[in-house]
Amino acid sequence: MGFSVTILGNSSAKPTPHAHPSAQVVNLNEQYYLVDAGEGVQQQLIRRGINPLRLRAVFISHLHGDHCFGLFPLIATLGLEGKRTPLDIYAPAPMGDILDYHRRYFWDDLPYEVKWHEVRTTEHRLLMDNSTLEVWSIPLRHRVPTAGYLFKEKQPGLNVNKFKIEKYGLSIAQIVAAKRGEDITLNDGTTIANEELTYTPYKARSYAYLSDTAYSAKAASLVKGVDLLYHETTYSIKDAAVARGRGHSTTEEAAKAALKAEAKRLIIGHFSSRYKSHEELREECRRIFPNSDIAAEGATFNIEEEQ
Amino acid sequence: MGFSVTILGNSSAKPTPHAHPSAQVVNLNEQYYLVDAGEGVQQQLIRRGINPLRLRAVFISHLHGDHCFGLFPLIATLGLEGKRTPLDIYAPAPMGDILDYHRRYFWDDLPYEVKWHEVRTTEHRLLMDNSTLEVWSIPLRHRVPTAGYLFKEKQPGLNVNKFKIEKYGLSIAQIVAAKRGEDITLNDGTTIANEELTYTPYKARSYAYLSDTAYSAKAASLVKGVDLLYHETTYSIKDAAVARGRGHSTTEEAAKAALKAEAKRLIIGHFSSRYKSHEELREECRRIFPNSDIAAEGATFNIEEEQ
Repeated sequence: MGFSVTILGNSSAKPTPHAHPSAQVVNLNEQYYLVDAGEGVQQQLIRRGINPLRLRAVFISHLHGDHCFGLFPLIATLGLEGKRTPLDIYAPAPMGDILDYHRRYFWDDLPYEVKWHEVRTTEHRLLMDNSTLEVWSIPLRHRVPTAGYLFKEKQPGLNVNKFKIEKYGLSIAQIVAAKRGEDITLNDGTTIANEELTYTPYKARSYAYLSDTAYSAKAASLVKGVDLLYHETTYSIKDAAVARGRGHSTTEEAAKAALKAEAKRLIIGHFSSRYKSHEELREECRRIFPNSDIAAEGATFNIEEEQ
Repeated sequence: MGFSVTILGNSSAKPTPHAHPSAQVVNLNEQYYLVDAGEGVQQQLIRRGINPLRLRAVFISHLHGDHCFGLFPLIATLGLEGKRTPLDIYAPAPMGDILDYHRRYFWDDLPYEVKWHEVRTTEHRLLMDNSTLEVWSIPLRHRVPTAGYLFKEKQPGLNVNKFKIEKYGLSIAQIVAAKRGEDITLNDGTTIANEELTYTPYKARSYAYLSDTAYSAKAASLVKGVDLLYHETTYSIKDAAVARGRGHSTTEEAAKAALKAEAKRLIIGHFSSRYKSHEELREECRRIFPNSDIAAEGATFNIEEEQ
């Protein structure tokens, strides 16, 4: 099953000619989830070949404009595009008020329901739970109430070992029972333990989005063992004082969070417009956490299946 | 003095990968005025080399998202960029409420004043008046209250004929008086009529922005003699029934408005996303009004000085 993250935008608040503010798409087996929605997100979706109608839910970290000003035009366009099914939006308060206000002034004729689910930014809670995915909130430390999001794939179902099927002459009914995790009793009365018959095809994977935030040991602990970690790095270690004053992280802090989380891979973004190139920021991370990369606009990061 | 219009965006509500919704910049002698502000306008300004801090005022035609969703992120960015002088926004109600709401949720620390001036969309009124320019509202016919805008350059000051200066041996004081329109009395008592000494360097120019609107003979009359007319053409003449139902114009109606207004030149835009190419729409206009062009994204239309 595919599990990937595509970066639609990655700049912090001040726009540049060709970089967009924060927005990403998590794609788990062709189920699409939007994470933050900076200005221009609907155009960025189309440019990356993602039909906005396919979005199942939207997760907004906090109510600074560079993380949500693209949501409102997107909602309007989905109406024009003929959306009829509800759109779930997970976001801190007062997103409910903000959506109400847009309904009043801009969306009097929206042909589908926009359902806001309040995210309490001080709590680590299960927000969404479907057949393949759980999404959890991660409390972050920013100037306004902010949540990160942990996307946890559900453990994929058991596979039955082909050689064992042959060896024991298992019937279809027995194979189905083994896939459910049951032990199997053969015709001769012998019971075969489920562990002998089955294996997990690959380990459940996870992705964590931690932005915007100052360094938080707690947030890092809550995403322990994550496969792919996006952590904001608005500033270089050289600008640590600025970062502290604004509730943002440096490269060093992002790398420290990746270490603390025992993440397999770190991707960094939300760069201040003061940095013309991001290679140096990446190098600052790599000195501490070698498997660090730039979450470049347009890049897709696959999380591979592993046994 | 330069007088030009730069097209920042030109598509109707549904976004396409590379076309932006309505936004233009009127530039009169390096004084910049933003006309409508669809999503992405701040990035479009930067791409065209226009520093958003240089905008003196914003004119919003109506409160559909594709004409104003870019305004709110732009206002936020101007704060980050250090703007301290007020920004004047001319727009129909309820823009005041919408700005208040943004102040409450997004702009608690905006370091400059956003001044809303209500535009009554049923009235033809002088909205703005400075040393070089008047801006007038033009009532339009759309699904919601909508105003067009007429940018009227003020008649440029008189120039004094060099040959006459020599002929009559005019002093600096006499030249200044002649520029003010006064007759000049020479040392020998002879009075020289101002008309003999001075000339108008060029005729005052004008630009009209009529979008979104169904055909309006009244609006066309109110911009009579305009040098450059932008008129929306959301639809081809083949889709006239759709245009009628939605309060939009066809190519034919835009061309008819240009004829009625005795415009010197017509530029068309706000095309429905159903048209992959706009050349045919232009040809439909040219059959009726030959001096028609596409208001292509990124294009700048100069209004030349004429004697």
